[in-house]
Amino acid sequence: MRMRLQHALLETGVAAGVLLEIEDGRITSARVDGQSRTFNGDPSPEHVRDPRLAGETGTTPGLTLPGFANCHSHAFHRALRGRTQQERGSFWTWREQMYAVAADLTPDTYFELARDTYAEMRATGITAVGEFHYLHHQPDGTPYDDPNEMGKALLAAADDAGIRIRLLDTCYLAAGFGRPPEGVQVRYSDGDAHAWAERVAAFDDPRVGAAIHSVRAVPRDQLPVVVEAARGLPLHVHVSEQVAENEACLAATGLTPTQLLAEAGALGAGTTAVHATHLTDDDIRLLGESRTNVCFCPTTERDLADGIGPARRLHDAGATLTLGSDSHAVIDMVEEMRAVEMHERLVTQQRGHWSALELLAAATYDGHRSLGFDDAGRIAPGQRADLVTIDLESIRTRGAGASAETAVFAATAADVLPPRAAR
Amino acid sequence: MRMRLQHALLETGVAAGVLLEIEDGRITSARVDGQSRTFNGDPSPEHVRDPRLAGETGTTPGLTLPGFANCHSHAFHRALRGRTQQERGSFWTWREQMYAVAADLTPDTYFELARDTYAEMRATGITAVGEFHYLHHQPDGTPYDDPNEMGKALLAAADDAGIRIRLLDTCYLAAGFGRPPEGVQVRYSDGDAHAWAERVAAFDDPRVGAAIHSVRAVPRDQLPVVVEAARGLPLHVHVSEQVAENEACLAATGLTPTQLLAEAGALGAGTTAVHATHLTDDDIRLLGESRTNVCFCPTTERDLADGIGPARRLHDAGATLTLGSDSHAVIDMVEEMRAVEMHERLVTQQRGHWSALELLAAATYDGHRSLGFDDAGRIAPGQRADLVTIDLESIRTRGAGASAETAVFAATAADVLPPRAAR
Repeated sequence: MRMRLQHALLETGVAAGVLLEIEDGRITSARVDGQSRTFNGDPSPEHVRDPRLAGETGTTPGLTLPGFANCHSHAFHRALRGRTQQERGSFWTWREQMYAVAADLTPDTYFELARDTYAEMRATGITAVGEFHYLHHQPDGTPYDDPNEMGKALLAAADDAGIRIRLLDTCYLAAGFGRPPEGVQVRYSDGDAHAWAERVAAFDDPRVGAAIHSVRAVPRDQLPVVVEAARGLPLHVHVSEQVAENEACLAATGLTPTQLLAEAGALGAGTTAVHATHLTDDDIRLLGESRTNVCFCPTTERDLADGIGPARRLHDAGATLTLGSDSHAVIDMVEEMRAVEMHERLVTQQRGHWSALELLAAATYDGHRSLGFDDAGRIAPGQRADLVTIDLESIRTRGAGASAETAVFAATAADVLPPRAAR
Repeated sequence: MRMRLQHALLETGVAAGVLLEIEDGRITSARVDGQSRTFNGDPSPEHVRDPRLAGETGTTPGLTLPGFANCHSHAFHRALRGRTQQERGSFWTWREQMYAVAADLTPDTYFELARDTYAEMRATGITAVGEFHYLHHQPDGTPYDDPNEMGKALLAAADDAGIRIRLLDTCYLAAGFGRPPEGVQVRYSDGDAHAWAERVAAFDDPRVGAAIHSVRAVPRDQLPVVVEAARGLPLHVHVSEQVAENEACLAATGLTPTQLLAEAGALGAGTTAVHATHLTDDDIRLLGESRTNVCFCPTTERDLADGIGPARRLHDAGATLTLGSDSHAVIDMVEEMRAVEMHERLVTQQRGHWSALELLAAATYDGHRSLGFDDAGRIAPGQRADLVTIDLESIRTRGAGASAETAVFAATAADVLPPRAAR
């Protein structure tokens, strides 16, 4: 299969007139095409403007990027959209509303919610998702006949929506330091980390990865068990989203959550620290030196009043930024990219902390890698042909130019054109 | 003309099945319609889902709101979208880029830029705009043959786009405290406030209002001249967008910008302080006690790294919130509403500072009133029939419910349905 792209983000930057050769879903050749270059004088000639004319031998208009990797998803939270905005409160009062949804889910409704959420992701250019999955058991805590039935519902939903998934099967054992699971949390708990590891081992699907919910939810002595069982798999963990979590951790262990994870051997290039909002200088050093990924979820972090994490300082210390839509109050990877930069602007009164290309790397290649998909996220030979095309002629993008800056700072999810590869 | 609305925001809140009677562009009756109520069991029956079927005798699907008032616009800044995001810098380096565009504009290109910007506003549900217009003269500072030619270009652009406009003709006389206009600023300056007032008086169009660019740009002794000339007109003024402005004002006058404006008699319910970002407790008291409007432009304030203003404290002190898209890095009044709340969440780690209805009031009725349009911004008898309808079945809004919260926290500008009244 051959695709002509009006503009595309290659490893060297945005190029005009790109010719892709694709075989079995993989890019075999990506080169700037002399013939297509003749279209560039007029950025929107009629023969490339009309998507219906952009057939296999035509030109895909717009700016084509590697598909986005949404590295932190709780698919069922989509049911809360628009429904948690009436009262005053905090992350913790929001969590009560979220738990009420979690309490009622069945494998069928979990599947349906996830299918619709993943379909929304696909429509907005997300081609891979990391699903942070902790809703394992029946409402009374009893495993389903197949103890991985809920996880399998998510895999089926991803298949249905046509999205690549890393199912981050999450260990969740405690309500807090020294506190057994409470209420709906019995659905999350496998009892101990060994039982969690056994269930995950029985899953037997190459798409399964691992997660520690948080240092609140996995006792200190069980963290190394999870780390050992997760060896070779992507390992994700919520870290310091809330000040209260830090305070409880310090009180119980004398360590920050990051220090506790470092002690357990949990940090490293295969690990992703999600949120990483309220960090000490030493936390930043530990995450950076270990080359841990840090998954920021800015639209959720502002919706849940988490705060603004030190994204750039983490990057400069050696950590790798990735992005997620988390609670799905919004599903828009463009907005996630932009918000990382915007939040830093708001607190520093300076512009230009992140370049558009750096933010695109977070949303594409680095995100894929943090999910264990090393062969996606670039438009380059050998990479999967997971693509997203940004309309450069929408009311928002028109006139802004065929640039990485337009994709990150002018576009929104609504400017993602329908996926060609799926047609 | 009669319109049936599936859902509408009335003065009492969101209602289902609303029947509007409209004559000569004004609402003569707005009532909940018993017949339409029978549609409510199914929130999206086929006969109301298809906008093509929503004719005069059909039902307009979705949630209809009063049209949005965009109270702070520099239309020509739209040309910068996506083009100021490459370098590090600040508000002040961005301003150099903006000045380069301002230097080249002619009445024709000013018209074209504004026409396209206003068309984008109309497509996103904005029915009234406050245009903060300071680009009055030829590149060398000489007035055009008609000294109001540039302002008239904006009025023509608004007519062309079908948007109601308040042309806030702006007095801009100085580069800073004790400094004459520099560079492109000669295009902005009328020489002194009396000359500004004479030019504005000669404009002779009921859509003209007044503005003081800032306390930087109008010397202390000339502020009262502008205030006097603006009596009876909406008066807008940039206030404390940047810390540097505050410092320069304090150094030159011993007063904060707000105190200086209070001294000049510039505050009050007919005045709008734009941005109001970096305020003292006394500034907040002065703005609140005088019932001054405060126009927040959160997507610009984050783009330009201005900071987060004390929106809720201003409201609680007695000021009235309005909203604007200002630099048009983004044109999305839903995002402006949402961002006011989100920015407060980011700095306080608490949710629920503003209700959806309060934010909608800012974007509709209060905004219109601050522009001198007292008869728009509500769906109620006697009000203008300026309406915007939010799609409740888009990928973003689906399932979130027919509520004010969905309009503010789940929708985006892309969910605004094409205006019916214009068809």
